[in-house]
Amino acid sequence: MIIIGKNPVKEALKSETTITKLYIQKGIHDMENIVSIAKDRKIRIDFTDKNYLDKMSEFAKHQGLIAVAEEFKYSSLEVIKQYAQDKGESLFLLVLDGVEDPHNLGSILRVAECSGVHGVIIPKHRACTVTETAVKVSAGASNYVKVCMVTNINDTLRQLSDDFVNIYCADMDGKSMYDLHMTGDVAIVIGGEGSGVKPLTRKLCDGVASIDMFGNINSLNASVACGIIAYEVVRQRKISK
Amino acid sequence: MIIIGKNPVKEALKSETTITKLYIQKGIHDMENIVSIAKDRKIRIDFTDKNYLDKMSEFAKHQGLIAVAEEFKYSSLEVIKQYAQDKGESLFLLVLDGVEDPHNLGSILRVAECSGVHGVIIPKHRACTVTETAVKVSAGASNYVKVCMVTNINDTLRQLSDDFVNIYCADMDGKSMYDLHMTGDVAIVIGGEGSGVKPLTRKLCDGVASIDMFGNINSLNASVACGIIAYEVVRQRKISK
Repeated sequence: MIIIGKNPVKEALKSETTITKLYIQKGIHDMENIVSIAKDRKIRIDFTDKNYLDKMSEFAKHQGLIAVAEEFKYSSLEVIKQYAQDKGESLFLLVLDGVEDPHNLGSILRVAECSGVHGVIIPKHRACTVTETAVKVSAGASNYVKVCMVTNINDTLRQLSDDFVNIYCADMDGKSMYDLHMTGDVAIVIGGEGSGVKPLTRKLCDGVASIDMFGNINSLNASVACGIIAYEVVRQRKISK
Repeated sequence: MIIIGKNPVKEALKSETTITKLYIQKGIHDMENIVSIAKDRKIRIDFTDKNYLDKMSEFAKHQGLIAVAEEFKYSSLEVIKQYAQDKGESLFLLVLDGVEDPHNLGSILRVAECSGVHGVIIPKHRACTVTETAVKVSAGASNYVKVCMVTNINDTLRQLSDDFVNIYCADMDGKSMYDLHMTGDVAIVIGGEGSGVKPLTRKLCDGVASIDMFGNINSLNASVACGIIAYEVVRQRKISK
């Protein structure tokens, strides 16, 4: 997996991601710090020309820097639960039911990281996984957020339900999210860009959280909707303490 | 200005946007409804081949449909104020202090439309205006949201302050937005992607609204942050009624 651009590479170097190689554009400025970190950690550096970096990044804005990292490491649900427990916090999960756009996934990882979500659950099939684009858009968040990839989202929801986790899906025609009590162990289900939350998945939820809508266009971008609901959970947790 | 793709064109046809011409890909299905609306309104239709639409849209996903619309019509601040007054609502404004990415602007227009914002204020220079990309990303919201373009954001903020509008900017190291009272006439200032809210602009605000951060990466995408704060205003308005 490659990580493209100064900030994403810097964040990856700061985190637990294993970088195996750096490609730095010949003659470019302001790389002293990165070179010194790489030397300390015995990361191989290849000084190469711009053309090579252009091709490698498929003409993305690489700013003269690309890192090769080990594949994204997914976590198990058990690790995520343990992580919440170790922090002494009620479980806070995001469950993505078919988010397909890597930009949305990357942006949702940022939401997860900022709002204190312990883990993001994504399906293995018919959905975006943590690809290079998602990593880039996540602006470093993918280095920290635990992501669990499961074969069947509904099986996972049933398992969470057995563990007394309160499951709410974000969808139209539910209850205003402000009137729900999304405290305790909580999982928020976010639907895919086109199809929304699937009917069977919706049935497995304890409630449907709706964002109040005041206009003619009744839909927000998936990552924006996710941010709004995640932060309503944050607010409710804060006042319930 | 061109509008690309089925849903954006359908939304434009439903709204007050003036469409002057439609380009439809020859032999494509499911256009009967659109053709019939266009004929009713005497909008010219040009049935053309895919190549032409590809070029016209610069290889965006046009789905066989492109509309030519009149340029985006900006509103004045007076019209926006009057609009809020006619609805019998406290003024609710978003002020964008140098948002440069048309994807963010489009996404913010969706937030504005969904959350009941009366108008979005953008600067004329060094920022994104309502371009074709912003219109496309806004998924129809640009047909409804009033946008006011001003020469100097700070002059506008001073004017709003004189009118007793409470101005809050979204930035780090302020007060948690949950602890602020963002009711009454309110303007929320959102900073640009790179630079955030400018120091002088920040000084003109009555308060700094911060989103609680729990992770290692302390920043959200501009449109996500805007959505989170706008919906905190929505919540506070709802309970203050």
